[in-house]
Amino acid sequence: MNLKETLQEINTQIDRLAYRPEPIELYEPIRYLMNLGGKRMRPLLTVLGAYLFTDDWRKAIFPAIGVEVFHNFTLMHDDIMDNAPLRRGKATVHEKWNENIAILSGDVMLVQAYELMLAVEDKHLRSIIQKFNICAAEVCEGQQLDMNFENYPTVSEQTYIEMIRRKTAVLLGFSLELGGIIGGADEKNAHLLKEFGQNIGIGFQLKDDLLDVYGAAEKFGKQVGGDIIANKKTFLLISALEKAKGNTLNLLNEWLAKTNFDKIEKVKVITDIYNQLNIKQLTEDKINQYFELAFQQLDQIVAETSRKQVLGDFIQMLRERES
Amino acid sequence: MNLKETLQEINTQIDRLAYRPEPIELYEPIRYLMNLGGKRMRPLLTVLGAYLFTDDWRKAIFPAIGVEVFHNFTLMHDDIMDNAPLRRGKATVHEKWNENIAILSGDVMLVQAYELMLAVEDKHLRSIIQKFNICAAEVCEGQQLDMNFENYPTVSEQTYIEMIRRKTAVLLGFSLELGGIIGGADEKNAHLLKEFGQNIGIGFQLKDDLLDVYGAAEKFGKQVGGDIIANKKTFLLISALEKAKGNTLNLLNEWLAKTNFDKIEKVKVITDIYNQLNIKQLTEDKINQYFELAFQQLDQIVAETSRKQVLGDFIQMLRERES
Repeated sequence: MNLKETLQEINTQIDRLAYRPEPIELYEPIRYLMNLGGKRMRPLLTVLGAYLFTDDWRKAIFPAIGVEVFHNFTLMHDDIMDNAPLRRGKATVHEKWNENIAILSGDVMLVQAYELMLAVEDKHLRSIIQKFNICAAEVCEGQQLDMNFENYPTVSEQTYIEMIRRKTAVLLGFSLELGGIIGGADEKNAHLLKEFGQNIGIGFQLKDDLLDVYGAAEKFGKQVGGDIIANKKTFLLISALEKAKGNTLNLLNEWLAKTNFDKIEKVKVITDIYNQLNIKQLTEDKINQYFELAFQQLDQIVAETSRKQVLGDFIQMLRERES
Repeated sequence: MNLKETLQEINTQIDRLAYRPEPIELYEPIRYLMNLGGKRMRPLLTVLGAYLFTDDWRKAIFPAIGVEVFHNFTLMHDDIMDNAPLRRGKATVHEKWNENIAILSGDVMLVQAYELMLAVEDKHLRSIIQKFNICAAEVCEGQQLDMNFENYPTVSEQTYIEMIRRKTAVLLGFSLELGGIIGGADEKNAHLLKEFGQNIGIGFQLKDDLLDVYGAAEKFGKQVGGDIIANKKTFLLISALEKAKGNTLNLLNEWLAKTNFDKIEKVKVITDIYNQLNIKQLTEDKINQYFELAFQQLDQIVAETSRKQVLGDFIQMLRERES
């Protein structure tokens, strides 16, 4: 299996996806969003999950694209809720068209994701739809928790991890488990794949939190400190609020309470506090902890070592990205 | 089968529906909307469809509730798009909570509808999910077409019927077909049930259009002429625009173009035009045409006459309602 060729194959099939003919107001936004690109990490994970257990991993491609369509459905609806103007550097669907179209096109995408799941064999169909249902509900719950947190004065580390598990990690877990089941994994191996996926998912999200503050602006492709400016309750802020004492805590709370401030100054002050409290190291340790746990689970999966290596290398590549 | 008892059974099971425990922001609105009541026409159709072919019609109850959950999902999202303040006389979800919650709770409802569909036997699962997918996509398309029509200067009768077919009628068709398949109908009978459901669905919508103008206000429970005031392109207006000539057409267009007007006067003038053009009779004829076609299809279904009678009587009862 050649990863680059597989990615091309996935992209080709995404380009060829048949949409119903009309109304175009409903289907043009779907094609637009699906063709904005992205790393296609989720469908690649599904295919790699299948490849662990079978040479016939191509039979995982349409369900894999179902996961990608589902992911883009969540982006379309989340962007409305978050008032986001841009997605992958282009106008979001609700900005380019309007909110109603973004709601309704998103709804159709969720239906289309179920349609693509039907490409699995009969013997797996019920189990896969069941797992997909739980995954889909948890992703929605994660988004709701994320919105709730905006109005909470504080959030515990545990609560935060549970939010990102649902919002981000369960879909990576499902992507891999789906591939595993299609490839013929038994229940135990499929479960390990799911756990592996969830743990790397949490690791990736914590890495995102870290890069927002400590990433190189030119590589990261967005403003460094965006989360700081918005008071977003990331792992870094939550940890800082837990560790800070006395004057440091006062200074932190003072800056969090400011409504008028110089953005660059705020990022500098809060980053200084993070540095003082050793938050970077703390976050890196937490990230390593999740990846170590994940790789222990990968080790336990009964499959050819060389195939596990392909999956492991792909994860390492993503992990080492600086953007 | 006793219809009243069956309705109670459906309502009891809806009350007992298990929702995931949290976040409550996501699940409370679902429970709220599902418990606002309604005629439960769709789940009753599913159960009646099953009863045509089996005594064990209770096995259709959970998929039937899946249809009801799907229907309420469309109401939750449509109410956002239509800026509707009230649903069944109570605040809509986006009014009582907010728009984001209505988007996300609706998404979860769509997932829950698929979960309830899983209550069908393995041998029917793939076919039912496939049919449900098409139905769900068509319902979304119908809503989009309805929104598009607001900006069109005119709409042909044929285009209008196709819109209401997708927005309203296909779900009644699916409700019945679903029940039929669960009950053991062969392909031909299942197809006839679907066609029957779609035709009564179109008939019901045209009846709604008629009642908006010619229904008794106290029975109809909403303002008579609401569609007229809003220039809604109903079957009546479309027919009037096709039939009107000369001064009548000028008067009609003049009133459609007014932005400042007395509502009662507008309803009176347009109703007078409808009367002059015999639109009431024309609409009634069209309604009868769809119901006659539907009942011919019911006749063709191979099932016990007494059981077809129960379904036919239920439809007649709904048809004769004045509200």
